[in-house]
Amino acid sequence: MSNDIYLYGCPNHIVELYEQLTAQGDKVRSLKTAKADKADVDAAIQLLLKLKVDYKEVTGQDYKAGCPPSGTAVSNDRQSENGGEEDTVDPWNVATNSAKGVDYDKLIVRFGSSKIDQELVDRIEKVSGQKPHRFLRRGIFFSHRDMNQVLDAYEKQKSFYLYTGRGPSSQAMHVGHLIPFVFTKWLQDVFDIPLVIQLTDDEKYLWKDLSLEDCHRFAEENAKDIIACGFDVNKTFIFSDLDYMGSSPEFYRNVVKVQKHVTFNQVKGIFGFSDSDCIGKISFPAIQAAPAFSSSFPQIFKGRKDVQCLIPCAIDQDPYFRMTRDVAPRIGYPKPALLHSTFFPALQGAQTKMSASDANSSIFLTDTPKQIKNKVNKHAFSGGKDTIEEHREQGGNPDIDVAFMYLTFFMEDDEQLEKIRQDYTSGILLTGELKKMLIETLQPMITAHQENRKNVTDEMVKQFMTPRPLNFNF
Amino acid sequence: MSNDIYLYGCPNHIVELYEQLTAQGDKVRSLKTAKADKADVDAAIQLLLKLKVDYKEVTGQDYKAGCPPSGTAVSNDRQSENGGEEDTVDPWNVATNSAKGVDYDKLIVRFGSSKIDQELVDRIEKVSGQKPHRFLRRGIFFSHRDMNQVLDAYEKQKSFYLYTGRGPSSQAMHVGHLIPFVFTKWLQDVFDIPLVIQLTDDEKYLWKDLSLEDCHRFAEENAKDIIACGFDVNKTFIFSDLDYMGSSPEFYRNVVKVQKHVTFNQVKGIFGFSDSDCIGKISFPAIQAAPAFSSSFPQIFKGRKDVQCLIPCAIDQDPYFRMTRDVAPRIGYPKPALLHSTFFPALQGAQTKMSASDANSSIFLTDTPKQIKNKVNKHAFSGGKDTIEEHREQGGNPDIDVAFMYLTFFMEDDEQLEKIRQDYTSGILLTGELKKMLIETLQPMITAHQENRKNVTDEMVKQFMTPRPLNFNF
Repeated sequence: MSNDIYLYGCPNHIVELYEQLTAQGDKVRSLKTAKADKADVDAAIQLLLKLKVDYKEVTGQDYKAGCPPSGTAVSNDRQSENGGEEDTVDPWNVATNSAKGVDYDKLIVRFGSSKIDQELVDRIEKVSGQKPHRFLRRGIFFSHRDMNQVLDAYEKQKSFYLYTGRGPSSQAMHVGHLIPFVFTKWLQDVFDIPLVIQLTDDEKYLWKDLSLEDCHRFAEENAKDIIACGFDVNKTFIFSDLDYMGSSPEFYRNVVKVQKHVTFNQVKGIFGFSDSDCIGKISFPAIQAAPAFSSSFPQIFKGRKDVQCLIPCAIDQDPYFRMTRDVAPRIGYPKPALLHSTFFPALQGAQTKMSASDANSSIFLTDTPKQIKNKVNKHAFSGGKDTIEEHREQGGNPDIDVAFMYLTFFMEDDEQLEKIRQDYTSGILLTGELKKMLIETLQPMITAHQENRKNVTDEMVKQFMTPRPLNFNF
Repeated sequence: MSNDIYLYGCPNHIVELYEQLTAQGDKVRSLKTAKADKADVDAAIQLLLKLKVDYKEVTGQDYKAGCPPSGTAVSNDRQSENGGEEDTVDPWNVATNSAKGVDYDKLIVRFGSSKIDQELVDRIEKVSGQKPHRFLRRGIFFSHRDMNQVLDAYEKQKSFYLYTGRGPSSQAMHVGHLIPFVFTKWLQDVFDIPLVIQLTDDEKYLWKDLSLEDCHRFAEENAKDIIACGFDVNKTFIFSDLDYMGSSPEFYRNVVKVQKHVTFNQVKGIFGFSDSDCIGKISFPAIQAAPAFSSSFPQIFKGRKDVQCLIPCAIDQDPYFRMTRDVAPRIGYPKPALLHSTFFPALQGAQTKMSASDANSSIFLTDTPKQIKNKVNKHAFSGGKDTIEEHREQGGNPDIDVAFMYLTFFMEDDEQLEKIRQDYTSGILLTGELKKMLIETLQPMITAHQENRKNVTDEMVKQFMTPRPLNFNF
């Protein structure tokens, strides 16, 4: 599991030039805001102008804040028939050349999933009896497979269970990593159902230059952050693949069943594996598929193999579950249903890579209030104009503004958010003011998470990660 | 694991014609022996002659008893440069067109292993202090890798362990399946070392049209036959992959380690897998590799990962362990050593397929004394001449005579065996007399096995198959 975003279709030196220009623009603005020495401001503007000339020379395009290079001036041959490049979305790569991020409507068509429309949101509200989560109200969970079928059955007292997961590639988790867990917790609360959380430490060992021991340790560390989201130990089973595969013959049996029914040709088509990939990668998809079948957890479902599974995940994980849904009927199991989320953007913008190794690419769950403030002010890509005057006159663009995007994820109040959008678009609200609002939303949220995590003991982690019955009768 | 033999390089209808001719020759002989009605004998001879004419027409060759069609008249393009077709030997196919069976000396060169020469046999005798097993004295275990290194270490009080296995594709086991176990038991007795026996029920599920439940049941049934060979429960661990993978995180960790270090290109080269093979087959070799590392059995070796492994197996399994030996140093483990056996021939001859589904292709461990007698008399391919007169005059050929081959495997007395060879070659010993000796060797052996197996209770199977410490200090 992975959901990083990076820029695609553009040579590195152009991207670097664009980023240098953006940073220089930021610098000019902050010098002006800080009423710095006129000489300093002038020098910064000089450099900015020089960079703009270089940019035009290299790309054939004028530099525009918030409009990263499309790469089209350099390589027209990568254009698809409809005139735009296709976004890349798979479990290891998410890439777009649009500052707004991936085109999710196109993705629904390409993946063959269904849009979560207002009707479905209303229906979830009706069936659960709860106001829909902001991720549903705002289209952050935007796509699904078979959600209506899950609700049909639920209305007939037929329960289901939730399955989500994370690839523990490092100890560091950022706010974006919490999205599936925050939403899954809400689903568990409103439907009162069991939840299994897979930590794919085996996958990270296979894909990364890490030891088995490190991957397993990261799994336990990440489990603490997940538990800190407030999951109920009586309703939730968290497992490391490296541990659970070796403690559940039923889980391995399902893995082998899936492995028998998927060919190399299929995983090549779905995941883009090649002949030089290791056989561990090639067979791994079966391990991510198996938890979608209730018989993988006899301790929870008492051996029942027909309990419906619902998987909330970022849409880059869909290839795994398209494969799972293809195999399910052939091995006598129900197809898992899915709820897909959009991607959480990097601070530098919806096109740039969010990396656990780059502390400035996101807000980490370990950041101090001061670090949060500095990162947002310094690195959050702005949809505002170059100068206050221009901004007041023309307004900002919230669709490409990372501070606004983050508020969409984390600010609960719909009306307040809408007012911010309008004020920013009209120019009433300045970039600095918008960033301040984000900072004031994130700081208490992260502090609260850190408090919760501090209270998660090793004993609690062990409890969550022990295969055992949960408080449900199946 | 599999060690069947079949005819290769020849269209089916020619093989059928050859078999029909051989059967008709047998019929003529038995009618003559039984002093049947002259009319019956004549009719049988008529048909025999007609078949011989057909055979010559189709193959361009004269029919010769004991010399199956080489297929060369039909497809010259399959000849290799040195004028003969190469034998096919891999874990799923063993094929040759020589009535003597596979050319093992060539195989040693091709596989890059070492011949077990008299010097090594003498050394095993010296180090173990025991007379070498007849399988060593007679070249049935004929090839090895690093056996001298194992003996060097053993002489310095450094112990090792044995690993062998079986693919449980059916409940029915024949005498040939006992070869590795009979020899492994001898090794365990003379060196006093731990033994692990892998039952690859997952492999059989992946390769055959069988359910997981059936494969697992076959594993338990086969375990009874293995236990009946006389293994000591305090020194032996038998495991089903389907069970042990789900009860040992350490075993799965070693499987993943191997899977990370082997590419699809490599298994394609070693095992001939193709893009349309299922991902389970592609990753399975790692599961057969893992028991060659002592850390897969922490309950036996107390977490030690440096205990040397010695694998006695039929040579068709060598590809798995070539791969294992290639990976071992890269994941910090010692390379396993190997002892390779020849193949056990089918009753119909060293070229024909021995199949668990064809009751007449071998002597099964469930056969009655009468069945044994009938099968040997009726189906054991003979190196004798067509008539008693010819046989007395020209002598028989023990090298292609299955009754003699079987005696090589099962008759303990070297001098007696050598006398039989000489007498058969000179024509003193007739085919019927040779077969009688085999029958009298097999009948008490199989009866004793059946007695032993009857005494193997489910409780004993459970004991052998429970992960637990053995009576060794590591």
